Amino acid sequence: MAEIGIGILGGGYMGKAHAVAMSSVAALFDTALRPRLEMVCASRPESAERYRQAYGFARATTDWQALVADPAVEAVVIATPQETHRPIAEAAIARGKPVFCEKPLGASPADSAALVAAAEAAGVVNMVGFNYIRTPASQFARQLLAEGAIGEITWFRGEHTEDFLADPQAPASWRTRGSANGTLGDLAPHMVNAALALMGPLDRVMGSFETVHAARPGGVVDNDDQAQVMCRFASGVMGHIHVSRIATGRKMGYAYEITGTKGAIRFDQEDQNALWLYRMEGPEATRGFTKILTGPEHPDYLPFCQGPGHGTGYQDQIIIEAKDFLEAIHAGAARWPSFRDGHAVNRVIAAIRASAEAGGWVAVDPA
Amino acid sequence: MAEIGIGILGGGYMGKAHAVAMSSVAALFDTALRPRLEMVCASRPESAERYRQAYGFARATTDWQALVADPAVEAVVIATPQETHRPIAEAAIARGKPVFCEKPLGASPADSAALVAAAEAAGVVNMVGFNYIRTPASQFARQLLAEGAIGEITWFRGEHTEDFLADPQAPASWRTRGSANGTLGDLAPHMVNAALALMGPLDRVMGSFETVHAARPGGVVDNDDQAQVMCRFASGVMGHIHVSRIATGRKMGYAYEITGTKGAIRFDQEDQNALWLYRMEGPEATRGFTKILTGPEHPDYLPFCQGPGHGTGYQDQIIIEAKDFLEAIHAGAARWPSFRDGHAVNRVIAAIRASAEAGGWVAVDPA
Amino acid sequence: MAEIGIGILGGGYMGKAHAVAMSSVAALFDTALRPRLEMVCASRPESAERYRQAYGFARATTDWQALVADPAVEAVVIATPQETHRPIAEAAIARGKPVFCEKPLGASPADSAALVAAAEAAGVVNMVGFNYIRTPASQFARQLLAEGAIGEITWFRGEHTEDFLADPQAPASWRTRGSANGTLGDLAPHMVNAALALMGPLDRVMGSFETVHAARPGGVVDNDDQAQVMCRFASGVMGHIHVSRIATGRKMGYAYEITGTKGAIRFDQEDQNALWLYRMEGPEATRGFTKILTGPEHPDYLPFCQGPGHGTGYQDQIIIEAKDFLEAIHAGAARWPSFRDGHAVNRVIAAIRASAEAGGWVAVDPA
Amino acid sequence: MAEIGIGILGGGYMGKAHAVAMSSVAALFDTALRPRLEMVCASRPESAERYRQAYGFARATTDWQALVADPAVEAVVIATPQETHRPIAEAAIARGKPVFCEKPLGASPADSAALVAAAEAAGVVNMVGFNYIRTPASQFARQLLAEGAIGEITWFRGEHTEDFLADPQAPASWRTRGSANGTLGDLAPHMVNAALALMGPLDRVMGSFETVHAARPGGVVDNDDQAQVMCRFASGVMGHIHVSRIATGRKMGYAYEITGTKGAIRFDQEDQNALWLYRMEGPEATRGFTKILTGPEHPDYLPFCQGPGHGTGYQDQIIIEAKDFLEAIHAGAARWPSFRDGHAVNRVIAAIRASAEAGGWVAVDPA
Ligand SMILES: NC(=O)C1=CN([C@@H]2O[C@H](COP(=O)(O)OP(=O)(O)OC[C@H]3O[C@@H](n4cnc5c(N)ncnc54)[C@H](O)[C@@H]3O)[C@@H](O)[C@H]2O)C=CC1
Ligand SMILES: NC(=O)C1=CN([C@@H]2O[C@H](COP(=O)(O)OP(=O)(O)OC[C@H]3O[C@@H](n4cnc5c(N)ncnc54)[C@H](O)[C@@H]3O)[C@@H](O)[C@H]2O)C=CC1
Ligand SMILES: NC(=O)C1=CN([C@@H]2O[C@H](COP(=O)(O)OP(=O)(O)OC[C@H]3O[C@@H](n4cnc5c(N)ncnc54)[C@H](O)[C@@H]3O)[C@@H](O)[C@H]2O)C=CC1
Ligand SMILES: NC(=O)C1=CN([C@@H]2O[C@H](COP(=O)(O)OP(=O)(O)OC[C@H]3O[C@@H](n4cnc5c(N)ncnc54)[C@H](O)[C@@H]3O)[C@@H](O)[C@H]2O)C=CC1
Repeated sequence: MAEIGIGILGGGYMGKAHAVAMSSVAALFDTALRPRLEMVCASRPESAERYRQAYGFARATTDWQALVADPAVEAVVIATPQETHRPIAEAAIARGKPVFCEKPLGASPADSAALVAAAEAAGVVNMVGFNYIRTPASQFARQLLAEGAIGEITWFRGEHTEDFLADPQAPASWRTRGSANGTLGDLAPHMVNAALALMGPLDRVMGSFETVHAARPGGVVDNDDQAQVMCRFASGVMGHIHVSRIATGRKMGYAYEITGTKGAIRFDQEDQNALWLYRMEGPEATRGFTKILTGPEHPDYLPFCQGPGHGTGYQDQIIIEAKDFLEAIHAGAARWPSFRDGHAVNRVIAAIRASAEAGGWVAVDPA
Repeated sequence: MAEIGIGILGGGYMGKAHAVAMSSVAALFDTALRPRLEMVCASRPESAERYRQAYGFARATTDWQALVADPAVEAVVIATPQETHRPIAEAAIARGKPVFCEKPLGASPADSAALVAAAEAAGVVNMVGFNYIRTPASQFARQLLAEGAIGEITWFRGEHTEDFLADPQAPASWRTRGSANGTLGDLAPHMVNAALALMGPLDRVMGSFETVHAARPGGVVDNDDQAQVMCRFASGVMGHIHVSRIATGRKMGYAYEITGTKGAIRFDQEDQNALWLYRMEGPEATRGFTKILTGPEHPDYLPFCQGPGHGTGYQDQIIIEAKDFLEAIHAGAARWPSFRDGHAVNRVIAAIRASAEAGGWVAVDPA
Repeated sequence: MAEIGIGILGGGYMGKAHAVAMSSVAALFDTALRPRLEMVCASRPESAERYRQAYGFARATTDWQALVADPAVEAVVIATPQETHRPIAEAAIARGKPVFCEKPLGASPADSAALVAAAEAAGVVNMVGFNYIRTPASQFARQLLAEGAIGEITWFRGEHTEDFLADPQAPASWRTRGSANGTLGDLAPHMVNAALALMGPLDRVMGSFETVHAARPGGVVDNDDQAQVMCRFASGVMGHIHVSRIATGRKMGYAYEITGTKGAIRFDQEDQNALWLYRMEGPEATRGFTKILTGPEHPDYLPFCQGPGHGTGYQDQIIIEAKDFLEAIHAGAARWPSFRDGHAVNRVIAAIRASAEAGGWVAVDPA
Repeated sequence: MAEIGIGILGGGYMGKAHAVAMSSVAALFDTALRPRLEMVCASRPESAERYRQAYGFARATTDWQALVADPAVEAVVIATPQETHRPIAEAAIARGKPVFCEKPLGASPADSAALVAAAEAAGVVNMVGFNYIRTPASQFARQLLAEGAIGEITWFRGEHTEDFLADPQAPASWRTRGSANGTLGDLAPHMVNAALALMGPLDRVMGSFETVHAARPGGVVDNDDQAQVMCRFASGVMGHIHVSRIATGRKMGYAYEITGTKGAIRFDQEDQNALWLYRMEGPEATRGFTKILTGPEHPDYLPFCQGPGHGTGYQDQIIIEAKDFLEAIHAGAARWPSFRDGHAVNRVIAAIRASAEAGGWVAVDPA
């Protein structure tokens, strides 16, 4: 029952989520390493102190370098804006500390390339925060695909659609500035990661993105409201991805459908405890999509509940991430999705941008 | 209570559907013109005679020219393969007879252009058989959009997906030969028509199509198994359309979702009696997609049943078409979707093919 | 291709539905007997004449006895209020004419008992109009049960809920007067018939019913707004039935769920083209309710459409009834549900009323 | 940031859930009192020690009296079998320690009556573990009802159905012995509590229960597999409740539907992040059930996630309970559902048993 001192950078949306996850992951998964909430870092002293108290950290700071350097901090979780990912992660790697970085990995493919190189050279455990793919349902989808349960794949459609900026009167803010905060920068990484995880590498893409509401109360918008991309996987399979922050009515529209020669899979995060599976089996008259409720038979469900259909939620995904990160540290080896995987996502995003500008297909940079 | 003699060309899938529709449309809608099943035409004498008896026509023939020329045939319904649409329709137009033609209108834009010119020059009532858009639900969707119920539109996604050729072992047949029978030729017209009906004209497209299973038992496949297209409407709205005949598990996947600044609409033909409507109204806490069951308040529902939620089906769409065709004849004016609309669909399909070959965006021929 | 002259009594809700059905049933099912709309009867001459024209009958009358006696009327369809069922049916039986009677069979068990006796003594073809059980989905449910697809049955729950009187301000009318028009009289027969069809005979019941809105604009309500009943089938299985006309939001809530030792079935008429089937088969991890869309593999679907998932609607149920009635006539033998089955339903309703009064379990009169 | 020492009795299904909840509740809700996992108790020393390590308690014991008496244990959570609830709770009350007891409150109404008396006499904070009613969706349903959002209630239907004993070959075990472990003892309390919470007190009931599979491998079954009850609330509203452990296909079928004169509510725990609301508002043509996804606007959601539709799960309900228990302790006053409420549930269960034996309606003991 070895303890491990955790330092978390950021105490906002995701900083809290990771702090909470570190509080209960050991009790839930009986992990070999048991996190101790050592230090939290935020921009302003008042908030850093507030987070410390609320989340139960021993200490707080506004100096991320101090946190990374602190000897009691044995592993680092980065939950600050993307521009800060690279310097912080590099500092942690330099000190040989395992590092978990929220998605996307850095603000550009240059950032992520540098981080992959650094982390792999240093042999430091590294991981990126693509939480949605960690629901029991999506993990099970990956298993089914790996087992060939739906045959050869012929089609992939993914979307990550929300509506937090659907109202044209929603004011301009940091969210409406900077490509890193547009839909390609902010939402697409989740679904691109899902596409890669479910389908394997992408060969080429043909994208299109746009700012639908260019002027909002309080300012001009300079990043994209939605994007779409036709794509071709290395396997030869055709696909489509759509991301939007103006998809009125969609709250957590992380959804995909995958068609194969022997079946099909459908998933929508808004009903995250169900996976729909069609199989070309048995008499035609009894075929249809089966609504499978997640339960103890599915990956990472049982620790949360012995009963099937009882359901897991958003926070539980972050706990599963924490478990995987702790296991990776314990094993001393990076775990999927590693920085390498985070970089692969960034390369796809870059190709989407390039193809939109080119008005045609663009190959994804293979490394 | 004037009678009108109907001649139907083809007695197969759609020939039967139109014959049945003509049998009951008057009783259901109390139409001014009451159809009399005068003559049916099929390729072979045995089947023509069989259709005559089964559907209750007075006479049968294998000579479509005879049918068109027959004085007792006062209106013509074309339910034969696309290659035959043009000569038959031209003959009917030449005789000044109202003509209803199954989708698509002819086998090419050249065909449909010629038919528009001929029909309009002759002032003959003309209509194309896009039945799916005629469900009470989809008619109501059009109404809602026209009323601005969901604000300014920002996104359209449509699909027409089925799985009749999903099994790679399904044998080669006429369906797997000739571009008119591929998904762009056969399925796309329905959804392109829906896109135009719901969203207005298309400005440009960027498509991609493919034969997934190039070899099937019995022969080589020379037409497309699936296609997708990113598009831009004249209104400036971005969209996507996907068509497939290998979409395992999808039986009647004619589905669309339309996002606007004040709401959203979702529809799936597999549950054709429901329309899902989201509205940015009232407190956030009670918002969500409302599942509206069709009923007497919705277009063309009441004649089928006084009770809401009791439902209409596939055949009822064809009856609604028949009613509209009879009303058009009675009024002496073409009714939507006319040949002009059928030609607009063909022009979009042609642009999709061209864009796929070009690997880039192609403007839709505006006329 | 023998013709048969049909006389329909009533031209309202159901009179129209049967007239329409008789217009297209032959074209759809290629029936041996082809209906000829001979005569329609309504209370008032204007409406009788209006129905004649609209539905395409040869003649109209206000004298039901004249219709029944007319030599060109070879089969009789009763679509008038329940009080009239018995005299009309008795007259038809007396003349040896096949008779189809809308549900319920007469206004009381006494009526239905008399009709069973008369029809069976005369050897006249007879049938009762329980249309909802005739959807392809519900017919398929019966098949599955008969095949033991879900094992030994352990539970049945049925409801027939609508909301046409949910608004307390909906005015008093004939619907709110007379027990025949309350929910036990009007809605329960459909679901009791379904229960018997799906589960076999009922042994005993324990019911409760009530008038929720006793005063409505325009008068006092003297029949029931809703009812519920716990029941025990002869097979020993426990069940529950609920009927309501004040079930706000429910439009066609004819729904059932049946649990067995090896699976379960769920159905809701508001999505009448889907049947949900659960089977205790294969690995636990892939089990769930399968949403089966009706298609050509299911009973009585193919004549309406070659494509699965294309769907049938309310009117199609009545057409299926017409087909069965014509086949029964052709075969010269009563078809399920016969008058005997209609009487069985009435006996259950009587037992429910008795049990509610007794405040305890009451055995269903076994014959 | 006062700490409070927590002692948990039982480390199984619910013992773990409460331990996990106590680990993260403070970080999530920033509670005034912050739990410290002081001691866990289990039957056997090995398991007690295992729970201690896995869940992170300071100490372990097999002696529940030692735990209750321990000065560092400032509040007690009882997650042991129902037979043990009373002695343990009485001991805690005797020492003036706040006590949270898993459902049901004791093994009988006598137990719960004694506990209510003791706790209220001692003025000790007390609460019962009805977790399902604490989802954001069900809390919101209660709010809607309280606000009159659906008008006067006219009907309630609830069920708690699972299938863990659906297979007749599932072996006999402690679950199949003793009325406390039958469906009335084990499952019904949750749904009865929901009925009371949503609808107010119950006036009378008429129930029926049964052992469907009386013999199982390994022994005879002496408790009930399923039960149903017709009921009448004090408000005059009619209702029905069904509970089953053999409901094949149902995994977490805690579901209810409530009808009112102005709307209706539907909920199913298998999709716990959605509440369906129908309102008699606006034009008929746009009415339907709205699928509301829970989000920050709904009770107790925001602490788990800032994004709507991101979802909470089973474990989160227990965390919400922990928060409420801590708040109750902090405030020094019992919180709903208190022992009084737990006793009310037990009285209803007793009345259901009595009515089944009587074969008729039985009044619920009013105090
Ligand atoms: N996986 C997921 O579901 C989500 C991931 N994210 C990702 O998480 C990261 C953080 O996003 P949010 O939590 O939404 O942001 P936030 O704005 O809620 O929180 C950011 C935190 O970082 C701190 N911070 C900012 N700059 C800092 C600096 N230079 N030094 C020290 N602390 C600094 C702030 O004080 C704040 O506590 C981003 O990379 C974002 O893309 C965000 C939301 C959801
Ligand atoms: N709106 C819809 O939902 C559907 C529309 N269609 C369209 O309907 C048309 C017909 O397709 P199906 O009914 O599926 O075909 P089918 O193969 O079932 O029937 C074709 C009929 O045309 C007759 N025919 C063929 N060539 C002829 C000729 N030269 N002269 C006289 N008769 C001839 C055949 O004897 C046969 O009766 C096509 O244009 C197709 O695209 C087809 C299926 C569905
Ligand atoms: N299977 C189903 O889904 C439904 C069945 N029904 C049943 O159908 C029957 C008729 O109901 P609706 O069509 O709703 O009634 P309606 O009020 O719409 O029509 C009744 C018709 O009967 C005629 N009529 C009444 N008394 C007559 C008399 N003495 N002689 C001749 N004609 C007379 C009226 O003129 C009218 O045309 C009832 O038994 C009812 O229970 C009604 C609605 C749905
Ligand atoms: N709210 C909910 O969703 C659920 C509530 N429950 C309730 O929780 C309670 C516990 O049930 P489970 O956790 O399923 O049982 P379990 O069998 O999983 O765990 C029972 C625990 O109690 C301990 N224990 C038993 N007798 C003891 C004694 N005399 N002294 C000390 N420890 C003792 C055992 O060692 C074990 O750790 C029951 O009252 C049950 O009704 C159970 C499951 C779900």
